[in-house]
Amino acid sequence: MKYCSQCGNTVSQTIPPGDNRPRHVCDGCGTIHYSNPNIIAGCLPVYGDRVLLCRRAIEPRLGFWTLPAGFMENGESTEQAAARETLEEARAQVRIGDLYTVTSIIHLNQVQMLYLAELDQPEFGPGDESLEVALFSEEQIPWDDLAFQTIRNALRFFFEDRRNDHFPLRHIELETKPGTYIAK
Amino acid sequence: MKYCSQCGNTVSQTIPPGDNRPRHVCDGCGTIHYSNPNIIAGCLPVYGDRVLLCRRAIEPRLGFWTLPAGFMENGESTEQAAARETLEEARAQVRIGDLYTVTSIIHLNQVQMLYLAELDQPEFGPGDESLEVALFSEEQIPWDDLAFQTIRNALRFFFEDRRNDHFPLRHIELETKPGTYIAK
Ligand SMILES: [Zn+2]
Ligand SMILES: [Zn+2]
Repeated sequence: MKYCSQCGNTVSQTIPPGDNRPRHVCDGCGTIHYSNPNIIAGCLPVYGDRVLLCRRAIEPRLGFWTLPAGFMENGESTEQAAARETLEEARAQVRIGDLYTVTSIIHLNQVQMLYLAELDQPEFGPGDESLEVALFSEEQIPWDDLAFQTIRNALRFFFEDRRNDHFPLRHIELETKPGTYIAK
Repeated sequence: MKYCSQCGNTVSQTIPPGDNRPRHVCDGCGTIHYSNPNIIAGCLPVYGDRVLLCRRAIEPRLGFWTLPAGFMENGESTEQAAARETLEEARAQVRIGDLYTVTSIIHLNQVQMLYLAELDQPEFGPGDESLEVALFSEEQIPWDDLAFQTIRNALRFFFEDRRNDHFPLRHIELETKPGTYIAK
């Protein structure tokens, strides 16, 4: 950020009174501009014993497989965001169930929230951001071609938990180093 | 938003190609400026059979009681944010436990995440944003002087769940009308 979005003047990095970390503060009108983490909402859509994955048509990780998920928008709930992303990316209507993974992706300033979800019908197709969409059984999951560590975690937990028919909320912190994570 | 934070030119509300909702787009450099929900992280600190509340020293709801919670910052996890807010507002060190409430406050573009937490020692005091901090048993909770509906919900669920010694994650959507909410 270089300019104030309110008045167009330049901004400086400074710690405002009563605060304890540097913010972008306008040199003209004094507005403090905060930057905070974003929420990525998505789901793990299940149909029978298979899971719905999307192959990404966009960067990052174009061509790799992922669960439907994307930035939560203003004016919606986390569950609405998860259902909307699934409709947009996989053209699938899902019933959103329990919250399943909450991952703080610390180095990206993101919190990813994935819900368990059910497909009533095997009806789906690639949205604008997907090359293809398909159902996978556990044996068919393209583990080496998954787009993100968060997706790998969610799928690994899911198949593990399915053996016990018990799906506790998984809390994960992802740090900078790829492959490093703390699961609770 | 009136000016581009990257180049200082004016911005216009328009739907970018491939998008489906209006964004602030720079008339000069074309940067698309997104606005997304923020996370409020906090906790419900427990010491024995009592809960720690803070009386707010700042608006909104100055003088009313609340649980320690505030905007999650970049570079931290949701749990770290909850612990930090508790240290800042109540000068209390807590052990963060399970995620307990997730509330989409749709009209404010906020998602509030409250964790169960434990105080090992009854050591606390008012931080800069609190007038006073105190422990309350269920009978002592100032129900009519609580700052927010989300706090009322969390406390109500907590005392209800404590009778069964079972604290399932509570998913709540708060809509515009005060007092209207959907709990799942
Ligand atoms: Zn300004
Ligand atoms: Zn610009």
